[in-house]
Amino acid sequence: MDCRIKSGNDEIYMSTAVSPLAPTNVPELAPLAGVRLATAAAGIRYKGRTDVLLALLDKGTTVAGVFTTSKCPSAPVEWCRAKLKGGKARALVVNSGNANAFTGKTGRSSTALTAKIAAKAAGCKLDEIFLASTGVIGEPLDATKFNGVLDMLAHDAAPGGWHDAAKAIMTTDTFPKVATATVKLGNAKVTINGMAKGAGMIAPDMATMLSFVFTDAPLPAGVLQALLKSGVDDTFNAVTIDGDTSTSDTLLAFATGAAKGAPKISRASDPRLKAFTKAFRAVLADLAEQVARDGEGARKLVEIIVDGATSKKSARRIAMSIANSPLVKTAIAGEDANWGRVVMAVGKAGEPANRDKLSISFNGIRVAKSGARDPSYDEAEVSAAMKQPKIQIKVALGLGKGRDRVLTCDLTKEYVAINGDYRS
Amino acid sequence: MDCRIKSGNDEIYMSTAVSPLAPTNVPELAPLAGVRLATAAAGIRYKGRTDVLLALLDKGTTVAGVFTTSKCPSAPVEWCRAKLKGGKARALVVNSGNANAFTGKTGRSSTALTAKIAAKAAGCKLDEIFLASTGVIGEPLDATKFNGVLDMLAHDAAPGGWHDAAKAIMTTDTFPKVATATVKLGNAKVTINGMAKGAGMIAPDMATMLSFVFTDAPLPAGVLQALLKSGVDDTFNAVTIDGDTSTSDTLLAFATGAAKGAPKISRASDPRLKAFTKAFRAVLADLAEQVARDGEGARKLVEIIVDGATSKKSARRIAMSIANSPLVKTAIAGEDANWGRVVMAVGKAGEPANRDKLSISFNGIRVAKSGARDPSYDEAEVSAAMKQPKIQIKVALGLGKGRDRVLTCDLTKEYVAINGDYRS
Repeated sequence: MDCRIKSGNDEIYMSTAVSPLAPTNVPELAPLAGVRLATAAAGIRYKGRTDVLLALLDKGTTVAGVFTTSKCPSAPVEWCRAKLKGGKARALVVNSGNANAFTGKTGRSSTALTAKIAAKAAGCKLDEIFLASTGVIGEPLDATKFNGVLDMLAHDAAPGGWHDAAKAIMTTDTFPKVATATVKLGNAKVTINGMAKGAGMIAPDMATMLSFVFTDAPLPAGVLQALLKSGVDDTFNAVTIDGDTSTSDTLLAFATGAAKGAPKISRASDPRLKAFTKAFRAVLADLAEQVARDGEGARKLVEIIVDGATSKKSARRIAMSIANSPLVKTAIAGEDANWGRVVMAVGKAGEPANRDKLSISFNGIRVAKSGARDPSYDEAEVSAAMKQPKIQIKVALGLGKGRDRVLTCDLTKEYVAINGDYRS
Repeated sequence: MDCRIKSGNDEIYMSTAVSPLAPTNVPELAPLAGVRLATAAAGIRYKGRTDVLLALLDKGTTVAGVFTTSKCPSAPVEWCRAKLKGGKARALVVNSGNANAFTGKTGRSSTALTAKIAAKAAGCKLDEIFLASTGVIGEPLDATKFNGVLDMLAHDAAPGGWHDAAKAIMTTDTFPKVATATVKLGNAKVTINGMAKGAGMIAPDMATMLSFVFTDAPLPAGVLQALLKSGVDDTFNAVTIDGDTSTSDTLLAFATGAAKGAPKISRASDPRLKAFTKAFRAVLADLAEQVARDGEGARKLVEIIVDGATSKKSARRIAMSIANSPLVKTAIAGEDANWGRVVMAVGKAGEPANRDKLSISFNGIRVAKSGARDPSYDEAEVSAAMKQPKIQIKVALGLGKGRDRVLTCDLTKEYVAINGDYRS
């Protein structure tokens, strides 16, 4: 069921139907030592829903972050980048409904005012405040709306409430995205809790990839940054919805260090971090996959595996060329194993490829080999496989050992409706 | 009105409605000395329509060509590339319905057999035959279907018949594309006649950009190649429908030299060629624009002008990033001057850009300046402008003197239908 809501001078297309690809088992997230959460409806843009999240972080919390590569980043992205140098965080403020992007000087003063209100509410320094905004771009964000609201949230903040937090940061998302892992660090049990919002890699107007990951492990900012940087390569950076990159993409990680008895770690290469690193990546991978599962208008989760490339980098480029091809994506929406379009996308990637060595499979059924149709494949079997909600396209180039994997979704009429019909 | 036709094991979505962006004045193309045309319905794939074009070229005709950059080109592209070295042409055979791409060894033997049949029919050498195919990829092309057909066409070939020729090469095109120019070369009047098929840059399954340009000017193959190479930069290479690149894109130019009294030209830099070069580019530009006007599902022709970039190359990359952005294209389909998405596309291009110097106009109305919304623009005026069938997006970067222009179209639900619903 869809509805239109009137907001400002835009009509916004909102789908109230949850993506058919939403995870069926949503984990419970336990409270995490050192983190207290609270949400409120501040009326930034949406009516009748929460749109502000405050996360209070205990003293000693370290922070790391990775951001959009856009040359036109939002004001909150610039704020976080600057504050990351200090490596310490005491509060995170996230609002949905307005991205505070392309808002010029007003944008910068708006982040400064939000941070000032938050620092007063949290009782900390300006440099310990982190900000993220998602929603419409180009509209000034009235930071005075946070007046009073953040004081109230700081008062109410409590352990737990992760699902509510994940809901408050949604825009065109159809379900809240959370993930959790617990793992041993030394002899201590530490927890990693994360949330994300996506709906695209993304639509800067109504969506933006934001993700926040928290752990009670005691990690210096430098170690956390190294974990985050290496962790995103094969998770968030290997997901694309429409090839569009937001001005606001933000992934922040916070380590409170409040887990009892955990050893202090000073280097990312410390062998005691092995299990933690694996669990941390699993949380990132889980959240990233949920972003693909909630791609705007998505009806199919698409996994693209390229192997036999001359390098991993080359495999990534070819996989992304396939993942971003409107023709491949519409064919999948139409449940057609259109390997001709996959050949096209391989060919246009500009990477080494030999047509006559290519083979292509859909959900494990090889449809093309040695540069031509595989004469042995069974059309009925492939047709049945294409009706599955998850489609795996595997391309074997036969040139070298480079391998990579990316996730995307199909391109449906609903994507066009969400992104074209939002205005009367 | 749409209909589905059953063909092979695919159902193909065909729109019988002509694009609302089709040119209203279709020029008459006069016969061109040295060129005779004929078309036939050979039943390659479609029923009840012509699908083969034979162009016979008088002795002395030179040839030049530019092709797809795909690493997985079709068999006819490989054939033409090899034959171009001789610089001479006596016949062009084009078929629609089957692209003879990704057909392995069968594809190569199929082009060889087609050329053999054509050479016998035209009474010339194999090296003087040029081939192009467009349509489904991965299906073997049965070249024996040309047996008899090409003999008949060689017998029937006559001056004129340009519209019929342009129709025979169509796939998902909704109108045939022709352009013509006459110009003085020395004291002689020479003519340039061209045709194209498109519907995408692009869809290798059902579309592929093919274009053939003929002139009676006496130009050596090297001169023709130089004209073609410099001519495509700002015409065919500045058009994108969906960013997907065909395995078969082919643009061939033929110079019969049959114009009476024209001076022999031996260098592309000959000043006598100035007017001809301009007219030649105008024909290419006209055909390229028609390809954008017939983009699959297109309802808006979109011209993107980027100026103030650090170089023309940088301006081109930014313009292409905007032109290929699904979010920009869906917003235009929705008649929204969504400059926030234009900022996003500028930002993701990876080229130098300073958010706070950016200004953006839609159809001459400035909506953003100095990195923020232009406070003086009139919403009602912009809304009215967005209802026009042609939308110009102008982005001024304010950094340097680099300027470029590309053409594209909007992204509609019909694009998804054409490319996703073709199969039951």
